[in-house]
This record gives sequence, C-alpha cells and structure tokens, in this order.
Amino acid sequence: MAKTVIGIMGPGDKAEAADIENAYELGKLTAQKGFVLLTGGRNVGVMDAALKGAKEAGGLTLGILPDKDKTEASRHADILVVTGMLAARNAINVLTSDVVIACGMGSGTLSEIALALKAGRNVVLLTQNEKASAFLDEFGGDRLSLARTPTEAIQRTEKLLR
Amino acid sequence: MAKTVIGIMGPGDKAEAADIENAYELGKLTAQKGFVLLTGGRNVGVMDAALKGAKEAGGLTLGILPDKDKTEASRHADILVVTGMLAARNAINVLTSDVVIACGMGSGTLSEIALALKAGRNVVLLTQNEKASAFLDEFGGDRLSLARTPTEAIQRTEKLLR
Amino acid sequence: MAKTVIGIMGPGDKAEAADIENAYELGKLTAQKGFVLLTGGRNVGVMDAALKGAKEAGGLTLGILPDKDKTEASRHADILVVTGMLAARNAINVLTSDVVIACGMGSGTLSEIALALKAGRNVVLLTQNEKASAFLDEFGGDRLSLARTPTEAIQRTEKLLR
Amino acid sequence: MAKTVIGIMGPGDKAEAADIENAYELGKLTAQKGFVLLTGGRNVGVMDAALKGAKEAGGLTLGILPDKDKTEASRHADILVVTGMLAARNAINVLTSDVVIACGMGSGTLSEIALALKAGRNVVLLTQNEKASAFLDEFGGDRLSLARTPTEAIQRTEKLLR
Repeated sequence: MAKTVIGIMGPGDKAEAADIENAYELGKLTAQKGFVLLTGGRNVGVMDAALKGAKEAGGLTLGILPDKDKTEASRHADILVVTGMLAARNAINVLTSDVVIACGMGSGTLSEIALALKAGRNVVLLTQNEKASAFLDEFGGDRLSLARTPTEAIQRTEKLLR
Repeated sequence: MAKTVIGIMGPGDKAEAADIENAYELGKLTAQKGFVLLTGGRNVGVMDAALKGAKEAGGLTLGILPDKDKTEASRHADILVVTGMLAARNAINVLTSDVVIACGMGSGTLSEIALALKAGRNVVLLTQNEKASAFLDEFGGDRLSLARTPTEAIQRTEKLLR
Repeated sequence: MAKTVIGIMGPGDKAEAADIENAYELGKLTAQKGFVLLTGGRNVGVMDAALKGAKEAGGLTLGILPDKDKTEASRHADILVVTGMLAARNAINVLTSDVVIACGMGSGTLSEIALALKAGRNVVLLTQNEKASAFLDEFGGDRLSLARTPTEAIQRTEKLLR
Repeated sequence: MAKTVIGIMGPGDKAEAADIENAYELGKLTAQKGFVLLTGGRNVGVMDAALKGAKEAGGLTLGILPDKDKTEASRHADILVVTGMLAARNAINVLTSDVVIACGMGSGTLSEIALALKAGRNVVLLTQNEKASAFLDEFGGDRLSLARTPTEAIQRTEKLLR
C-alpha cells in the first residue's frame, strides 16, 4: 500500500522568516508521524525548509519540481520528480497529497489552495496573512481549516486522515 | 503575427445567472474588439456563455479543454484544444492569454487568477463576490484590477494591452 | 461546431530540406481543404514551414508551444497556445488533432507518432527515412499509413476524416 | 542528495508473459542495487511486475500515475504521484529517471523511449520485438543500447550512471 503523503505548500524566494520556521517545524512533525512529505522541491523558502525539517527527523521526502532539471532542487529531497511544466505541476502537487498544508501565502500558494479545493482535497492553512486567512476560511468552507501553529496544523491533518 | 488572446475564466456548473450574463456580454465585446476569445471550452457556465457571445458577434473562439475528448465541449468554440490534463490546463489558459478576465468566482477561477498573477499576467476581475473582490484587489496589487461591468472590463483590458 | 484540426508534426532545428519543402506543401494543402493547421508552433523546421504554407494559402493556423513564452514562436501562427511544459505538450498536439501527419523523423516526431497511436489517432507518415517507415508501417497497424507525397498525405487524411 | 531513480517502462494490459517476467526481475535487481524504481504506477503489466519485484527485494518504489486517483494503482508502489494528465505524464517519467529501461514494446513504451531520447536520457531496451530493437538501435544512436537479459540491462544501467 502506498504511504500517506502530506503536501506542504508555500512561497519560495519571497517566504517570510516566520513561514520558514513554521515550514521546518511542519516538516519535522510530518516525518515524526510517519508521513511522506511532498513539496515543490526547490532549494528556497518553505519548500526547502520543510524538506530539511523532515529529513532531520528521519522522514521520507519528495520534491515535485517545476523545472526541467535538478539544478535548483533542494538537497533535502530523497526523491525528485522532474516535471518540466512550471506551475502546471501545482496541480500534481495537490492531486498527490492526501492533505495539503499551506504555510505562508503567495500567488503560487494561493493557486495550490484553489486547485486543492477544486480537486476535493482538504487544506490546512497556517499563515500570518490575516486577510488571506479570513477570506479563505469562508471561501473554502468545510474543506479548509485554519491552524495557528505547526502542531495544530499536524493535529488537524491527522484528524482529516481518519 | 499571432492574434491577441483574451482569456475569460469563470465557473462552470456553479456559475450564477449574473456571471453567465456578464460572460455572454464579455464574449461579445471581446469579439467586437477583434480579439481571440479563450475559455476553458466546456459546454457550461461562463465558458459556454462567453464563447456563445463571441461567436454571435463574429469572433474567433478557442476552448482549452481539461477533458480527453470533445464530449462535453461547447459548440461555440471554433478551435478546441484537447489537453486531457484536468485542472493542470488552467496553467495553459493563463499563459496563453494576453490578459485574463475573471468573471464570477469559484475554486477553479481562483486558481486561474492565482496562476495568472504567478505568471505575470494582468487580471481584470468582475464578480458579485465582494469578499473575493476585496481580498484579491489587495492581494493582486498592480496586476489585478476590478471592473463593475463587462464594458468596464473590456476597457480596462484594452488599456492593459497598450 | 469546432473546425477540423490537422496536426503536422516534424523536426525543428534538424529538419532536412525535403521535410521543409513537404511541410510547406502540406500546410498549403491543409489550408486549401479548409482545415485548421496545428503544429508545435516554433520558428524552425517543419513547424514553421507548414504554418507558412497554410498562411500563404489563407488558412487558419494554430501553434502549441512547448515554451513558456512566444520568444521563439513562428510568425505564421494565428493563435499561439503557450503551454510551458516542454515535450509534455506533444500529448496535447495529438489529442487536439483529428488526424496527425508526421513529416520527417526525429525523437520528438517519433514521440508524437507513438502518442497518437496510444490515443487512438490516425497517423499519416511522410518521410525519407525508409527504416522508420518500414518499422512504423508494421508497428502502427491500421492506424498508420504511409504517403510518398504531400498530395497523397492529404488525400489519405481526407479519407480518414470521412 | 536525491536518490538515483531508474525508470522501467513497458506495456500495461498488453504486456507479454516474457515482459512481465523480465520486469519483475528488473525491479528486483534495481532494488538490490539501491536505486529507486519508477514506473507508470498502474496495477497491470510491466508497471505492476517491476514494482512487485522491487518491493520484494526491499526497494523504494515510485509510481507516476496517468489517472486522477489511485483506483487502478499498483499496490507495490510506496509513493504514488497522481498526475491526472494521461500520457502527458510519460514526459515526467523520463525526465525523472536517471536512466530509462524499456521492457517490452507498445505505443506508450515507444513514446517514452522517444521522449527519453528527446530529453537526452539514456535508454536500455530489453524486448522480444526484434524489429523494434533493430530500428531503435540505429535510431537511438549512442543514447540507446540493447540488452538481452534483465541482468545485462542493469549492468548497462550501472555503467551509464558512472
């Protein structure tokens, strides 16, 4: 049987310090729970920090790259899937994830939240962006829940998987 | 030289009556201005209504289908591009559009707005959903502008193309 | 109703002179028959020559680009679909074509022939590469037919569309 | 650092008995060498047999599904990537693989060989189809090598990775 995959989505170059800290913690907790961690696979921001956290906790990590090669890939991904299809790979990220955790906010992250909702995936949102939280909390309905801390996000994720 | 392509994105099955009316009008205006109209190509909601409006005004219409065949395609598309890649085709919709007009709101539409912003495309948003408008107006920065009517949306689009 | 789309697939940079001549002629004939011409949209080889032939004959032309922008697009395409997904767009090329004509041979072209057969599309092959012809004639079964001239390729295409 | 990924490509429903035996053996050997095994992820043919072989040898297995869900997925994949993009996922299969081993022959397999050559990947071909072998041996040039047994295919793969 295939392992449970938790996708952690968030900004790359423009990630804020708090998002990166949260991503690292989310990666660690994901690994400690025995889940495979999926991110966008690049060597920046939330993607890189979450993969690092998961690897340091002994987890299995998966990066789904938008690029055509591994030049800008995180070195904390065990497996790199090379799509060569830019943001179209965001659709793969969410279809592959059993639950999507959005950590931080940006246009790529927002696209992944929206694609996840479209595909019927549950989304847990952890961000300092209060306006985004308020809007998406209502927009996402039952499919989207807010978390204030990485621990709360993972607890919520575990409930959603039951 | 390739023609200018205006993408009109909006809900399918869940489109509201006002969105469908606006879409029809947007399609008509797009054609009258000599632009190619691009939509998601399906035979429902905003996609279908915009294509119908453009065809009735003598325009050239393009549908980018998520499906693997033309079974559920709008009969108002001159050219149907069959992607077979579900919502990943949303990324193609926005890359192909010189300007994206979002008409109405839903998870697919939100994903297209976000993907358009990510890809550096300008977005004109026309929706009754005031909370979405308020959030996206700020989130999208200079790249996103609000319109209250189809006519205003097309005027804004023309300015963006200059 | 959507127009009939004929896809002409062939090498880019490595196209031979005979392939480019054939592509130009195929494009012209496709347009004269009233079909929309689809190619890979780039400004080289078979793609560019076929689009040029079709435009000069007054046809409607569609380029499905692998690239993320129009920098290297043919100037003979009326509509450019920007996929940003490299060779994954080959799958879109064949799904979108009612009949696929392969003109010349190369690894990209071979992938399109194979993807077309996989998707149940009919393929007409016109190439100087006798070994490829011999192999694919048998491999493709009823789905693949050989043509010796552009005229024969279009005649065969018309029969397949009936 | 990301693990080395070996892609084993081959027919699904139409796989021959010899291909399935070879795929099982190839999967086993891939795992024994410590490589991650990638296949198309479905529960039939070469995909399923290779994954089974690798799992029984204690390997790490990755399935890249063309489908939008896991309904027809092999139960021998540790990680299932859900693309929802049909044969366009073949492009991902080859970009993700450090070396591609083609086991058996069919239109999907031929597309993966061609896409691999296009992307500059090395291909090792193991098939009973002598005409395909003869054609591809010449067509693929230095990038393609023939193997007569699974053991020979893996030895060749190891050389290519050095």
